[in-house]
Amino acid sequence: MFTDLIRNIRLRNRIAIARAISLVEDERDSNNEILSNLFPHTGKAYRIGITGPPGAGKSSITNELIRLFRDSGKSVAVISVDPSSPFTGGALLGDRIRMINHHNDEKVFIRSMASRGGQGGLANKTKEVADIFDAAGYDIILFETVGVGQVELDVMQATDTVLVILVPESGDDIQMMKAGLMEIAHIFVINKSDREGSNKLFTTLNSVLHSIPVQKNNWYPDVIKTTATNGDGLPDLFSAINKHRTHIVDTGLWKSNLDMRYQRQVKESVSHMLESTFWGHNYSAMEEEMKKPHDKRKPPYKLAESLISQ
Amino acid sequence: MFTDLIRNIRLRNRIAIARAISLVEDERDSNNEILSNLFPHTGKAYRIGITGPPGAGKSSITNELIRLFRDSGKSVAVISVDPSSPFTGGALLGDRIRMINHHNDEKVFIRSMASRGGQGGLANKTKEVADIFDAAGYDIILFETVGVGQVELDVMQATDTVLVILVPESGDDIQMMKAGLMEIAHIFVINKSDREGSNKLFTTLNSVLHSIPVQKNNWYPDVIKTTATNGDGLPDLFSAINKHRTHIVDTGLWKSNLDMRYQRQVKESVSHMLESTFWGHNYSAMEEEMKKPHDKRKPPYKLAESLISQ
Repeated sequence: MFTDLIRNIRLRNRIAIARAISLVEDERDSNNEILSNLFPHTGKAYRIGITGPPGAGKSSITNELIRLFRDSGKSVAVISVDPSSPFTGGALLGDRIRMINHHNDEKVFIRSMASRGGQGGLANKTKEVADIFDAAGYDIILFETVGVGQVELDVMQATDTVLVILVPESGDDIQMMKAGLMEIAHIFVINKSDREGSNKLFTTLNSVLHSIPVQKNNWYPDVIKTTATNGDGLPDLFSAINKHRTHIVDTGLWKSNLDMRYQRQVKESVSHMLESTFWGHNYSAMEEEMKKPHDKRKPPYKLAESLISQ
Repeated sequence: MFTDLIRNIRLRNRIAIARAISLVEDERDSNNEILSNLFPHTGKAYRIGITGPPGAGKSSITNELIRLFRDSGKSVAVISVDPSSPFTGGALLGDRIRMINHHNDEKVFIRSMASRGGQGGLANKTKEVADIFDAAGYDIILFETVGVGQVELDVMQATDTVLVILVPESGDDIQMMKAGLMEIAHIFVINKSDREGSNKLFTTLNSVLHSIPVQKNNWYPDVIKTTATNGDGLPDLFSAINKHRTHIVDTGLWKSNLDMRYQRQVKESVSHMLESTFWGHNYSAMEEEMKKPHDKRKPPYKLAESLISQ
């Protein structure tokens, strides 16, 4: 089953890859079969997350990184879950950026993913699409997301190196970011650094970063100033990414990331199976309880206990 | 068991309430027993969520709302999960606000909750603390949270009326908010509306809100301009809250909110019990699989399937 599709994905056939992504996006039953067949071929791609507030220039940075990775001979896949990204045809707020035409490059695959309606499954789907690219042999997978929500945190936690893109005006957001992205960023980029305030943000960020007592795994996040529109600072950013990659490979983090992703996928599959089996048998019992007035119902914990013990 | 504690909570004894909250926060085994005993007395309080970016003045608004509810004879409990809130002793960025001393008021209970470390359980704990206040007979429960992350969305989805507090400078954040809070807000507050840009934001917000084709449950969010520091607009906000309350009671939404919260609590308890039982038996089998190299492992879905079928 799906033998041809799997073989063609492995041959990096664009039509086969696109078809597999569509199947994953539509949540067909066939997903698990396809992904299970691709699994032994995954675990080789390097995964880089790129996030930050709208208008920070994530797409310009992504665009430049594609170029730099291509120049060094790597193939690149991009997964964009940013509704305002020019990659997705959005560009609602962002400046019009000077996009290099990667469409003629066979070794670049750009895919946008819609965040329509509920976001529950989006992070998972993003990871599944990444596994397709990984099995297809792309060397680098770039994840572009907007914002600081749980979806973004989930996506970022599935990557090896996380870039947080800021602009000089982002100072006020740092407090907010502390709660989330601050903790998972490996490299901070102050983009549009030709604007006023970039030195101040540079200083603030470095001092905040050094006020956090112990950095995990002996990595102190780099802070890099860039101006993506004219390429300034991009070589520095590229070096910082490669430095982080060397660091995590040397310290064994690369392997433990892979293990953690595996373990998380197993746990998610288990939860999904357990819950759907359980509620397949017990949903009507809960509905019966719901018919009673609120104060006559069993307390939630007690109802759960009695349904499980049956 | 816990008979005295439950009785004292019902008598709105502050020491008993504080003790129950501590037990919930520490995740003692006794939680479920206490919460189950309190459950029949819940379902009466009105729950209001207050969220928005740091520095928007959420605490000032909360402070004014406490006063307005107290003036109308209601008792008020506040749960603050905003690390920068003056209620929590934070005020890292926020202006120093003119806080009314509610500490001498027996019918006001303010409790801050730490978001230290993982945020996984925070939303749940917040709801459990709310149930304690509800059972203790507080008429109004205010939830103050910062930001737009999943924790905040979870907290807000457990409330009846959601206020999103913005400032005139928040225009750029609207795109970002669309993904999350935009969809769950019932009332938008443009605070610090004496500043430049408040009329522009007012117009933008209203036009964005009316471009969303169908509002759920025939409710079009109100947009209210306030200046919390001098009380401007607060009576309008108070009216808007009461208007929304009347709306959800009349349309039956109040009751279905209560039902949905109940159902969610049952489901969460079930998931928790199923997973802990399952992994109690199967964790070592997963660990065995982890010892193999990545490409020799069973695909995650297949491993989950085989563990469950055993």
